[in-house]
Amino acid sequence: MDINVISRPIDLKRVKLSDPFWSQYVELVRNTVLPYQWDALNDRIPDAEPSHAIRNLRIAAGLEEGEFGGERFQDTDVSKWLEAVSYSLVTHPDPELEKTADDVIELIEKAQRPDGYLDTFYMIKEPEKRWTDLHEGHELYVAGHLIEAAVAYYNATGKRKLLNVACRFADYIDTVFGPEPGKIRGYDGHQEIELALVKLYKATGNNKYLRLAVYFLDERGKEPNFFVQEWKNRKGYSGWSNLPVPYPDLKYNQSHKPVREQDTAVGHAVRAVYMYSAMADIARETGDKQLLDACKKLWRSIVRRQMYIIGGIGSTHHGEAFTADYDLPNDTAYAESCASVGLIFFAHRMLQIDLDSEYADVMERALYNIILGSMSRDGKHFFYVNPLEVWPEANINNPDRKHVKPVRQKWFGCACCPPNIARLLTSLNQYIYSANSDTVYTHLYIGGEARIGMENGVIKIKQESEFPWDGKVKFSIVSAPSEPISLAFRIPGWCRKWSLFINGREETFKKKNGYIFVKRRWETGDIIDLNFNMDIEVIYANPKVHANAGEIAIQRGPLVYCLEEADNGKNLSALSVDTESGFKTQTDEELMKNAIVIKGKAVRTIEDDWGDILYRPCPSPEQEVEFKAIPYFMWGNREPGEMMVWIRRISGERSRSHDTL
Amino acid sequence: MDINVISRPIDLKRVKLSDPFWSQYVELVRNTVLPYQWDALNDRIPDAEPSHAIRNLRIAAGLEEGEFGGERFQDTDVSKWLEAVSYSLVTHPDPELEKTADDVIELIEKAQRPDGYLDTFYMIKEPEKRWTDLHEGHELYVAGHLIEAAVAYYNATGKRKLLNVACRFADYIDTVFGPEPGKIRGYDGHQEIELALVKLYKATGNNKYLRLAVYFLDERGKEPNFFVQEWKNRKGYSGWSNLPVPYPDLKYNQSHKPVREQDTAVGHAVRAVYMYSAMADIARETGDKQLLDACKKLWRSIVRRQMYIIGGIGSTHHGEAFTADYDLPNDTAYAESCASVGLIFFAHRMLQIDLDSEYADVMERALYNIILGSMSRDGKHFFYVNPLEVWPEANINNPDRKHVKPVRQKWFGCACCPPNIARLLTSLNQYIYSANSDTVYTHLYIGGEARIGMENGVIKIKQESEFPWDGKVKFSIVSAPSEPISLAFRIPGWCRKWSLFINGREETFKKKNGYIFVKRRWETGDIIDLNFNMDIEVIYANPKVHANAGEIAIQRGPLVYCLEEADNGKNLSALSVDTESGFKTQTDEELMKNAIVIKGKAVRTIEDDWGDILYRPCPSPEQEVEFKAIPYFMWGNREPGEMMVWIRRISGERSRSHDTL
Repeated sequence: MDINVISRPIDLKRVKLSDPFWSQYVELVRNTVLPYQWDALNDRIPDAEPSHAIRNLRIAAGLEEGEFGGERFQDTDVSKWLEAVSYSLVTHPDPELEKTADDVIELIEKAQRPDGYLDTFYMIKEPEKRWTDLHEGHELYVAGHLIEAAVAYYNATGKRKLLNVACRFADYIDTVFGPEPGKIRGYDGHQEIELALVKLYKATGNNKYLRLAVYFLDERGKEPNFFVQEWKNRKGYSGWSNLPVPYPDLKYNQSHKPVREQDTAVGHAVRAVYMYSAMADIARETGDKQLLDACKKLWRSIVRRQMYIIGGIGSTHHGEAFTADYDLPNDTAYAESCASVGLIFFAHRMLQIDLDSEYADVMERALYNIILGSMSRDGKHFFYVNPLEVWPEANINNPDRKHVKPVRQKWFGCACCPPNIARLLTSLNQYIYSANSDTVYTHLYIGGEARIGMENGVIKIKQESEFPWDGKVKFSIVSAPSEPISLAFRIPGWCRKWSLFINGREETFKKKNGYIFVKRRWETGDIIDLNFNMDIEVIYANPKVHANAGEIAIQRGPLVYCLEEADNGKNLSALSVDTESGFKTQTDEELMKNAIVIKGKAVRTIEDDWGDILYRPCPSPEQEVEFKAIPYFMWGNREPGEMMVWIRRISGERSRSHDTL
Repeated sequence: MDINVISRPIDLKRVKLSDPFWSQYVELVRNTVLPYQWDALNDRIPDAEPSHAIRNLRIAAGLEEGEFGGERFQDTDVSKWLEAVSYSLVTHPDPELEKTADDVIELIEKAQRPDGYLDTFYMIKEPEKRWTDLHEGHELYVAGHLIEAAVAYYNATGKRKLLNVACRFADYIDTVFGPEPGKIRGYDGHQEIELALVKLYKATGNNKYLRLAVYFLDERGKEPNFFVQEWKNRKGYSGWSNLPVPYPDLKYNQSHKPVREQDTAVGHAVRAVYMYSAMADIARETGDKQLLDACKKLWRSIVRRQMYIIGGIGSTHHGEAFTADYDLPNDTAYAESCASVGLIFFAHRMLQIDLDSEYADVMERALYNIILGSMSRDGKHFFYVNPLEVWPEANINNPDRKHVKPVRQKWFGCACCPPNIARLLTSLNQYIYSANSDTVYTHLYIGGEARIGMENGVIKIKQESEFPWDGKVKFSIVSAPSEPISLAFRIPGWCRKWSLFINGREETFKKKNGYIFVKRRWETGDIIDLNFNMDIEVIYANPKVHANAGEIAIQRGPLVYCLEEADNGKNLSALSVDTESGFKTQTDEELMKNAIVIKGKAVRTIEDDWGDILYRPCPSPEQEVEFKAIPYFMWGNREPGEMMVWIRRISGERSRSHDTL
C-alpha cells in the first residue's frame, strides 16, 4: 500500500440516528417516500408517468405478457428502492416491508436468465442485441445498481438470495468482459458497475470482483477508444435510436483519456462522480497512489472551479454536464439531484483516504441544500434540476430555461433522482463518523448514538446537535475502553469561531486538516460541548465566476439562503442588498419548527413611469425595503414564484481589504 | 380605404447614396460581398461548407448529373444574391455583373418545370412530394424569394425574363392554393410568399397576386389548423426528417390564431417579421384598418418588450424565437441578423402608414448596430447570431452558449444571413426618404442626392451627414418646384437637443410624431443645417428586464457601445462603471477613420488572494481603472476575446428622480 488509509466508515448498524432535524426527513423517506415509490414502481400513482418497472420484471420472469415500458435502465429504480429499503430495515426492522422486498427479490431471481444475465429491456425487447451498445445501452449500469441493492440487502438481513443473483450476474459479466482474447474489451457508457463491484468484493471477499472493477476503470479511455470502435462497428448509427449519430463525444462519459490521466471534471456529472467514487474505492483497496492523485485533482476541479454554492454540479442541461471552469450560470443551471448524491459518495470515500474537512464541508453543503431541497415537505414531489434562479415566465417560455421547473414534479419518466435521494437519506447514519484503531472522526453534526469498535474495545457515544439552526453540539460518552482514544471533530469551513468544553471546562486544541483532535482516556458520563459560531455570512464568489459579479449569497452555518417572491414580491432582480447595515435572524415557525429566516435592508428599483418602454437614459428611483431570505432547501413549498440565491449588492462601499480567514 | 397612407417609399433610382460612412459599406458589398457570395454559390470558397446552390439549378435544368446539396431552401441564396445584384445595378451599372445575372436567370428559366414549378430540392430529390409538407418544406418561401429577385431585376434592368418565370410560378401557385374546392387550403410554414406577392402585384399590376397574398395571410391560423391537419395526414411523421414529430408548435410559425387577432410577437423571429411586413403591405394596399391595428400591437410587442438594445430580436436559439416579455438574456441571446433585416422591412412599411419616428429609430438602431456588426470589415465573414455578451471559454464549452460565436464565420450551411445583409445594404437608399404629394420625410441621416416627384414638380435635395460620429447634417436644395413643400426631418429618439438653421438663421418648429415639419417655398441653393446633439448616454433597461438589473449600456447617437477584452483585459464582468464622474469621447483612427471611442472611470474587482477557491465571506478589493468602449458594430475585428454590451454600474449613488424627457 502506497497510500495512507486514514479511517474506515462505520457500519450502518452501529449508528442510530436520532436528530430533531434530520430524523423528520429520514422518517419522511421511510413512511412516505418508500411506500410512494413502491406505488410508483407498480404504476399506481394517478396522473404520473407510469414506471413499468415491476411489470417489466414480471414480463421478463414469464409471469405476464406485454411490452417493455420505460427507459432502458428502468430496472435500476427497483434496485435503488431495494437498496433504500435495505438501509431502512437495518435501523427500523419492518417485517411487512421485508416481505415485500423478499417478494421482489423472488421476482428478480425468476427473471434472471440461466447464464446470469438480468436486464429486462434487453431480455424483453432486444434479446439479440445484448452487449452490442455499451455506449448507451446501460446494461452494466443496470447490473451495478442490482449489485448495490444485493449487497445492501445482504448486509441488512443476512439473506443471500439477491446476493447470489448479483454474484451470478457479476460472474457472467466477468466471462464477457476483459482483456483476454474472445472477451469484449469494453466498459459501460454510464459508470456505476465499478463502485458496485468493489462493494460486492467487500461483501463476498471474492477478489475477482475487485479485479473486474479495476479492469473496467483502467480500460476506460485507452486507445483505440472502445466507443469509437463500437460506433464504427455500428456504421455510425446509434444503438439506442437506430439513427445516425455523430462521432461519440468521449468527454461526455469520461472516456476521452485513461482515468489516471484525468485532472479536469468533464462531461455528464453523474457519470463523472460515480466514476471518481470508484477510483477512490480502488485507490483505497489497492493502495494506488496514482489513482488517489487523480482523485484529488478531479475533486479540486469540481469543488474549486465548477460547483454551485448549493453543492450542485453540472452547469448545463445539455448532457447534464460540466462546462468550463468558473462557468456557473444561475438561470440555466442544471445541478441535478443525482449528481450531488454522487458528489457525496465521492466526498465520503475521499474523507477516508485523504483526511481533509473540505470533503465533509462539501458533503454537508450538498446535504443541507440540494438533497433536502430536492424533496418537497410532503415527500411526494421532487426536483431533478435544482435551480439557483427561477423566473416562472422565462422558465416556461424560454427553452433555454425550460428544464428548470418552478415546482417539484410528481415522478419522472427517467426517475433516477427520487430513489437516489431515498437511498442516501436512509443510509445517512454512515456519513456521520469514521474511525481507525484509535481515533473517531466526526464529520457531520447529526444527533444519535454510535457504537464504534476501537483497538481496545468499543466506544459508545451519543451526539445531540442543534444543527442547522444553532451551532451547539453535545457529545456524551456512554462507555469507552480504558485506553486513550482521540475524538476528532470537524471544524466546519463556514465557522470562524468555535469553543470546546470538556465536562464544563473550556479547552483549546489545534486544528489539523480541518479537525481538532481531543485525545484522552474517556469515561462514562464525560460530556463534550462544542459551540460553532453560526453567524450570518455574506458570501462572495471568485471574480472569475462571471455570473455572480456584483452579487452575494447569504449563508448561515451549513444553510444557503434564498429570496422567494412569496416574501419579497415580484421581480427579485430589482433588489440589491445592503451588506453594510447588518442582517438579523428571526425564527419563523410557520415555515418549520425552529426555522431561522434572515432579514436585512435592501433597495428595490421602482418601476416608476417606465410605462411601455424598454430603454431610457435615466435610472429608476430606488426605495429602501426589507428583504427576507429563507433557507434554500425550503424554497418552492409555497405558491410558485420567483426565487434567487445570488443577489445583487449595493456596490457603493469600496471594499475594504479583507481579513485573512 | 380606412387607413391614411402617409407617404410612399422613394424608388431606388431616385436616391443616390454618397456618404463618407455608409458608402464604404455599400461599396464593400458591391466590390467584395457580392463577388464573394457568387463564389460561395458556386462552391469556390476554400474551407467553407459548399453551397451547392448553382449546381442544384444546373442539375434541375438537366445540364449536370448529381445529387441535390444543401438545405431544402438553398435556392433562396441565389435569389437573394440576384436581388442584391439588381439593387446594385440600379445605382452602379456593371455590364459584366449583369451578364452573370442574365446567365443565372437563363439557368433558372431552364430549370423551371413546364407547369411553372421551381424548387430544386423537390425537383431533384423528392419530385413526388411536391406540396406535401407545407409545414417545413419551404416551397412557397423559395417561391417568394424568387419573386422578390424577379421584381428587383425587372425594376433594375427592365428585363422581363425572370419576371415571367416568377409570374408563371405564381400563376401555378394560384391554381394550387386557395379556398376553392380541389385546391390546397394551406399556406407556408415560413412566411415570405405574402410580401413577395405584393411586390409582384405592384410590378405587374395584376390583382390576382394581391388576392393570393391576402388569401395566404387570412387563411393562416384558421380552425381547423392546416398544419395540424397536415401532421395528422402524415400520421405524426415529419415531412422533413421522416421521423415522428410532436404535435406542431403553432406559435413557432405564427399560425396559432388568425393574424388579425395576434397581438404578441411569438415564435421564429424571421418568420414573424416577414409576416408582419406583409400584413403592413396589405393594410396599405387594401386600406385594412384591422390589419394595421394588429401591426401596431405586434410592433409594440417587439420593440417595447422583446427587443435587444442593439436592435436584435429572438431571445433563444431554440427555434430562433421570441420567448417572453422582458426576457432578454445577454449570454444566451440569439438576435439573428436576418431577423433584424426583417424588422427593418417591417419598420420601413409601418413608417408609410403610421408615421412615427419610433419606426425609423428602430430601423436606425438595427442598421448601425446589428446589420453593420454582423459583417466583418473584410466583407467575407459574418455573424448569424449577434451576441451581447461573449466569453469565449463559456461559448465554446457550454452548449447553452455554443450558438454564440466569438468570431465571424466564413459561410454558413444555412446561409440566409449574408445575402440578406447584402440585399439590404445595396438597397439602403430606399430607406432614407419617403414622400407624399407635398411632404418629403427624411428618416435616416445618410448622405446623397434625391430627386423626388411632388404634386407640382420634382424636388432635388442633397444631404451631407456626419453620422454616426457627429450629429451635423446639411441639406441643400438643388432645385425645387415653385409651390411650397414640407420637409419633415426625424428627430432621433436618442437626441435630447437639436437645432435647425435655414440659410444660416436658426428657426424653431414643433415636433409632430417625432418629426419637425419645415414648410416653405424652397429655392435652389437653400441650405438647411441640422445639429443633433450627440451626447454620450447612459442607458438603463426597464427594471422588468431581469438580465440587465444593475447594469447600464452606453450609447452615443445611433451607436450602442461595448467593451472588448482587447481594450479592457480579461474578465469584463469584473468591471463596474462609474456613471457619475462623466465619460469622454476620443477619436481612434486605428479602429476606423473618424471612429469615436468612449472612455470613463470604472472599478475592477481584483482577484487578490482567491487562489483556488470559489466562495468566501469577504469581498475582493477593487481598483479604479479606465474603461474604453468601442462601437458595437466594430466588435470582433481584433483578436478574439470577451465582449459585453450591458455593464454593471456602481450602485452606491441613490438614483435621483429622473427628468422627464
